[in-house]
Amino acid sequence: MLAVDVGGSSLKGAVVTAAGHTLAPSTRPTGTGAAAVEAITRFLLELADQARAMGVRVAGAGVVTPGTVDEGAGNVGYASNLEWRDVPLRDLLSAGTGLPVATGHDVRAAGLAEQLFGAARGIDDFVLIPIGTGVAAALRTSGHGVVGATGAAGELGHIPVVLDGERCPCGQRGCLEVYASGGGVARRYAARTGVPSRAQDVVARLGHDTAADEVWQDALAALSSGLTTLTLLLDPQVIVLGGGFTAAGDALLVPLRQRLTEQLTWRPSPEVRLSQLGTDAGRSGAAVLAMRQQGITPPPELQSATTSAVVEPASGRPALRTHV
Amino acid sequence: MLAVDVGGSSLKGAVVTAAGHTLAPSTRPTGTGAAAVEAITRFLLELADQARAMGVRVAGAGVVTPGTVDEGAGNVGYASNLEWRDVPLRDLLSAGTGLPVATGHDVRAAGLAEQLFGAARGIDDFVLIPIGTGVAAALRTSGHGVVGATGAAGELGHIPVVLDGERCPCGQRGCLEVYASGGGVARRYAARTGVPSRAQDVVARLGHDTAADEVWQDALAALSSGLTTLTLLLDPQVIVLGGGFTAAGDALLVPLRQRLTEQLTWRPSPEVRLSQLGTDAGRSGAAVLAMRQQGITPPPELQSATTSAVVEPASGRPALRTHV
Repeated sequence: MLAVDVGGSSLKGAVVTAAGHTLAPSTRPTGTGAAAVEAITRFLLELADQARAMGVRVAGAGVVTPGTVDEGAGNVGYASNLEWRDVPLRDLLSAGTGLPVATGHDVRAAGLAEQLFGAARGIDDFVLIPIGTGVAAALRTSGHGVVGATGAAGELGHIPVVLDGERCPCGQRGCLEVYASGGGVARRYAARTGVPSRAQDVVARLGHDTAADEVWQDALAALSSGLTTLTLLLDPQVIVLGGGFTAAGDALLVPLRQRLTEQLTWRPSPEVRLSQLGTDAGRSGAAVLAMRQQGITPPPELQSATTSAVVEPASGRPALRTHV
Repeated sequence: MLAVDVGGSSLKGAVVTAAGHTLAPSTRPTGTGAAAVEAITRFLLELADQARAMGVRVAGAGVVTPGTVDEGAGNVGYASNLEWRDVPLRDLLSAGTGLPVATGHDVRAAGLAEQLFGAARGIDDFVLIPIGTGVAAALRTSGHGVVGATGAAGELGHIPVVLDGERCPCGQRGCLEVYASGGGVARRYAARTGVPSRAQDVVARLGHDTAADEVWQDALAALSSGLTTLTLLLDPQVIVLGGGFTAAGDALLVPLRQRLTEQLTWRPSPEVRLSQLGTDAGRSGAAVLAMRQQGITPPPELQSATTSAVVEPASGRPALRTHV
């Protein structure tokens, strides 16, 4: 299969074999509007060429995107970063590549991949929360992804955690990601100190910079409030945190787990884990969507690109001739 | 079918025919602990007698309860009002009545009934929120009820809407139902004025009692924050409000819809409707669980007890001989 994860700035693609080997991983710039659709089409054609050069037959492609995504119809309703509105993505990419294309939502596909291959393996009720510049969530309940009536479920970053709180760039007030995201922490620290800083700089100053400590405490309070809400509404077994924000490590995880346990006075708190697939999760999920569209059962494991130099033969045939 | 909705103070039961007629509706006191299980058993036997006296054969029973309910195993893990912990309810009731019994969660069953027969008919993505002394929610996504890893999903009343807010009887701080429930409004008004009042008394004083106005504004703020969170996480098409709190009518609905629209700056707000089945929803859902257990497709309509004096023949046979 060809698999592409469409991000706001870059496309992440690879060739993924039915046996679970990830080959030829690479990235391309995304662009916006019709140019973004063209960039994805070109990238898929290049990946198909690479697959053929490796002797791999291409059965289809999976492409996942941000925005409000109707998986059934293959349409993207609205994706702000890509400047897309009502884009019939599946049909455009199929026409442009001559391949069957499955489309899906990037975060939901990442959640599916974490469930099949990663930190939530075999767990039917869990939440994946990628925290980067903003905050998203893939909600899975009884083994199914929550999509919503308009494909817009999982907007954890914009739930209100502070009544009449600070204004979010989205226009709402008190959104979780105003306080607890890479963008939010950087913005709030800079507003207090006048010093432009990235979130990791703020984390590096913890313990010897009062402004950094205050901004971080607010982030922990907002995030633990959001996890409390998710737990009470969806009762997940596990919460998986991903994204660049988790590079804060124990400065994030230790107090977050403690706050969550303290806030949930009358019920156990779910386990909070880190993502295993990291930034590959969306692309791996795209591969799974393509396999499912072709009636291929996903493999029990996905080998990451760095460990897939040697391709194992599958079912007696040379793997490089297997369907991907 | 026999159908019983187990409440903290009373059992609501009826005989429901496969054609959807509700007969012999009545209530009994619930009790706690083992006495509650005995009361339900006796009530089911009485309903079975009444069914037989009407010439109706009883194929099974459905019983719904509060608490953490494992529908698959037929167990109630914990139900505080009933003082139950790890009660194998389905097996106890089957043994006590000699009938096949399906058990379920009261609020989730009410959500199922609203979807089949009520305010959310034919809608796959919606939330039912009964607001009485406390606040609960039945979450339905893509036509499925959200149950959670431990059967404890839907605890909307205890999501934090005010960071470090007022203490809830549950032990947490800032819970939605501290501010936006019958119990919460009554408690907060009494704390301000020293005048013990019910929520409906507070509503009656709106516009000429500053304390009432302030408590009500806080309730609206908390509830609209909760509905905003539900909308962003689950993307429901419709939100259905039920329970005694909705007797406030336009004093609740008009400002609530306005606040929800204002808070959701960048996405449409779902329609907010009132429940159609009201306090019958749980019992109707219990009947559906019993029908499904017996492989009987629920009827397209349920006639309420008050309109079912005349029982129509179903498929050529006298209805009073039909299976229930």
